[in-house]
Amino acid sequence: MTVDIAAANREALSRLCAARPAWTGVRPAREAVGLEGRALLHAGPPIEWERMCGPMQGAVIGAILFEGWAGEPADAERLAASGRVTFAPCHSRGAVGPMAGIISPSMPLLVVEDPVHGTTACSIIADGPWGWQLRFGAHAPETIKGLVWLRDVAAPAFGVILEKEGPLELATIMAKALTMGDEMHMRNLGATCLLIRALAGPIARVVADPGQRDAIMAFVARNNDQLFLTWAMSAAKAAARAIEGIRGSTVVSTMARNGVEFGIRVAGLGDRWFTGPASIVEGLYFPGFGPGDANPDIGDSAIMEVYGLGGMAMAASPAVLSIVGGKSFAEATNTTRRMAEICVGANPLFAIAALDGEGAPTGIDIRKVVRTSVAPTINTAVAHRDPKAGRMIGAGMATPPLEPFSDALVALAEEYAG
Amino acid sequence: MTVDIAAANREALSRLCAARPAWTGVRPAREAVGLEGRALLHAGPPIEWERMCGPMQGAVIGAILFEGWAGEPADAERLAASGRVTFAPCHSRGAVGPMAGIISPSMPLLVVEDPVHGTTACSIIADGPWGWQLRFGAHAPETIKGLVWLRDVAAPAFGVILEKEGPLELATIMAKALTMGDEMHMRNLGATCLLIRALAGPIARVVADPGQRDAIMAFVARNNDQLFLTWAMSAAKAAARAIEGIRGSTVVSTMARNGVEFGIRVAGLGDRWFTGPASIVEGLYFPGFGPGDANPDIGDSAIMEVYGLGGMAMAASPAVLSIVGGKSFAEATNTTRRMAEICVGANPLFAIAALDGEGAPTGIDIRKVVRTSVAPTINTAVAHRDPKAGRMIGAGMATPPLEPFSDALVALAEEYAG
Repeated sequence: MTVDIAAANREALSRLCAARPAWTGVRPAREAVGLEGRALLHAGPPIEWERMCGPMQGAVIGAILFEGWAGEPADAERLAASGRVTFAPCHSRGAVGPMAGIISPSMPLLVVEDPVHGTTACSIIADGPWGWQLRFGAHAPETIKGLVWLRDVAAPAFGVILEKEGPLELATIMAKALTMGDEMHMRNLGATCLLIRALAGPIARVVADPGQRDAIMAFVARNNDQLFLTWAMSAAKAAARAIEGIRGSTVVSTMARNGVEFGIRVAGLGDRWFTGPASIVEGLYFPGFGPGDANPDIGDSAIMEVYGLGGMAMAASPAVLSIVGGKSFAEATNTTRRMAEICVGANPLFAIAALDGEGAPTGIDIRKVVRTSVAPTINTAVAHRDPKAGRMIGAGMATPPLEPFSDALVALAEEYAG
Repeated sequence: MTVDIAAANREALSRLCAARPAWTGVRPAREAVGLEGRALLHAGPPIEWERMCGPMQGAVIGAILFEGWAGEPADAERLAASGRVTFAPCHSRGAVGPMAGIISPSMPLLVVEDPVHGTTACSIIADGPWGWQLRFGAHAPETIKGLVWLRDVAAPAFGVILEKEGPLELATIMAKALTMGDEMHMRNLGATCLLIRALAGPIARVVADPGQRDAIMAFVARNNDQLFLTWAMSAAKAAARAIEGIRGSTVVSTMARNGVEFGIRVAGLGDRWFTGPASIVEGLYFPGFGPGDANPDIGDSAIMEVYGLGGMAMAASPAVLSIVGGKSFAEATNTTRRMAEICVGANPLFAIAALDGEGAPTGIDIRKVVRTSVAPTINTAVAHRDPKAGRMIGAGMATPPLEPFSDALVALAEEYAG
């Protein structure tokens, strides 16, 4: 049974480009992705408790405390190890989680829908301004308190705002943000500001309690240039879901890391994961930290590169270089050029002004990756490997292993030869 | 009496780079710049009513109606022509006005102070969301209504916010905005968003009346990507005032256009204007408009180029090219390189990421302009020449005449030879 791979990939590119994901709601994971009982979702390909890296174990402990399944970290750890908590990838439920990517049933999720293809995707609202963050493995009382506040105060307010104001189109925000120097993975300042611009009026109108209004406004408007990331990730996932299952397509539909393994899924191969060891991120460390403290590459945020952003769109973001440790703007444009070699095409929506309006390279073709031995460049944050640290220690560029791409290609050949 | 021009220019550059202008208040022009009686300020070098261009005459009529000095446009026009209204450049009072630049005694002005040099500068809050705008010559009832709302509602609220929150540092906002693709003259989207981020919380906290809160939030957060421009202009003017009067300096301290003439002032020559004919702006016109509708170059906004931004910093703003009609990003970087040839140095605060962190060329040296015949590139909006149109019809790049620069150089030679 022959397949027309080129046609399938053109279809995949066309769907990625046509997607117009919009933020439509905020709902508990229980409702949004049907997460019931003592079940947790995590970043990356499947992994069991024992093999999880430090930040992921730390975040699991935090989520168990947040859900009230245990009262103390030691009890939470015992419960996690007991087999009485089930684990599955976020991607198995159409969700994405940054860094450890832990999602528990009561966590409020952003719901993003692409009306063009009828897909839905979800992600967390990253806890920002309360010291260390769950996604980096933090699980101290202040972290749990922040999650409770998000669940009880911020999320319901966002929900009411969306009900009153209607969906917020994210694709156009992201396109505009690219002209503001975002590449949408490690730099989301422009998009975050555009989100604030969209939400400020509604927050002031909708939230009646002055203290809550003040706190929600501070949450969106203060100190978190990366706030938009999980909105971007949800949007990218909604777009990527539209290519899942395109028969014969060699375009990557998922790239994700659990901190131990890097994994991909391919449009023409459904839900099968192809994995290899997670790489160490090359980049810039915060003062006092170094590669010895770094957890290997972790998080579902590589969905940004699947959607043609992040490392793919480096040339849109001269300023991200000082965050991820790039040496020159020429390096950034070279990266985008190199990424174009492994992609099916470009997304005109994501026009890069510094490349005279060329679209961001989009649709990673595993055939091209294997043929050129060029792996996708993934811009990413770096987590401390020790969950007791529970924090970000730097950022950089990850180069994932090539084996998952070649393994997937072999599998595709076998499947369609069969 | 010899002067060390090089040392004087190093001092000028050093002051421009050291300036840290901050927004400290909002006060009526009467208080802020001592504008009393029937006096109006206008953009550019001195000009009398009879010679004013259409948009400036239209804005004068609007300001007279706003002040209540006349009740109907025809009466306002007669009053303006009668000699009973006095006119002076904004720059004569340490102020700057965009486009027609008309400032009347009751208009609320942004007050910006540079604590480093003790200078103060002012500009209007540009009327945004009510149809046509005074600065383009509009003077219909909706324009006047907008000015009244700014005076009675928005300006007092801003004043209270600044009292409660303290000054807002503009230099760092501008530096960050450059990394967001602003050049701060024709593209202020990043800075506008950062201003919204700074003001959203305080507006929600300070403005008690829900209707007013909503309207003020909408004013800052909706549909006006150029909102920040007059904050930027005030900041640039505060910085530029620090070099006025540096003996022997050939650095330009003022560039401004009244729609008929382009004029400069030079640090070492005090308040003397050197003028030539205002040029026609080359750029992009909105659909339905063309060069035949365009008023010649107008406005005090060229203070941005005096401060090393706008056309000087084109390489920071790949996206401004589609606004001003640039053809390629290479053209933008070439423009910044060419501007470096006529400047004393660069401002490290305004690092251009796409040029690997090089500062924006700063401190236009009239000697270099004359020697190279390279005029500063000024990014600018284009006004319709007919005050009845009262609107913006496009944007582009203006190349001012060289005569004012050579005339100033002659004057400087004469002064210091004397």
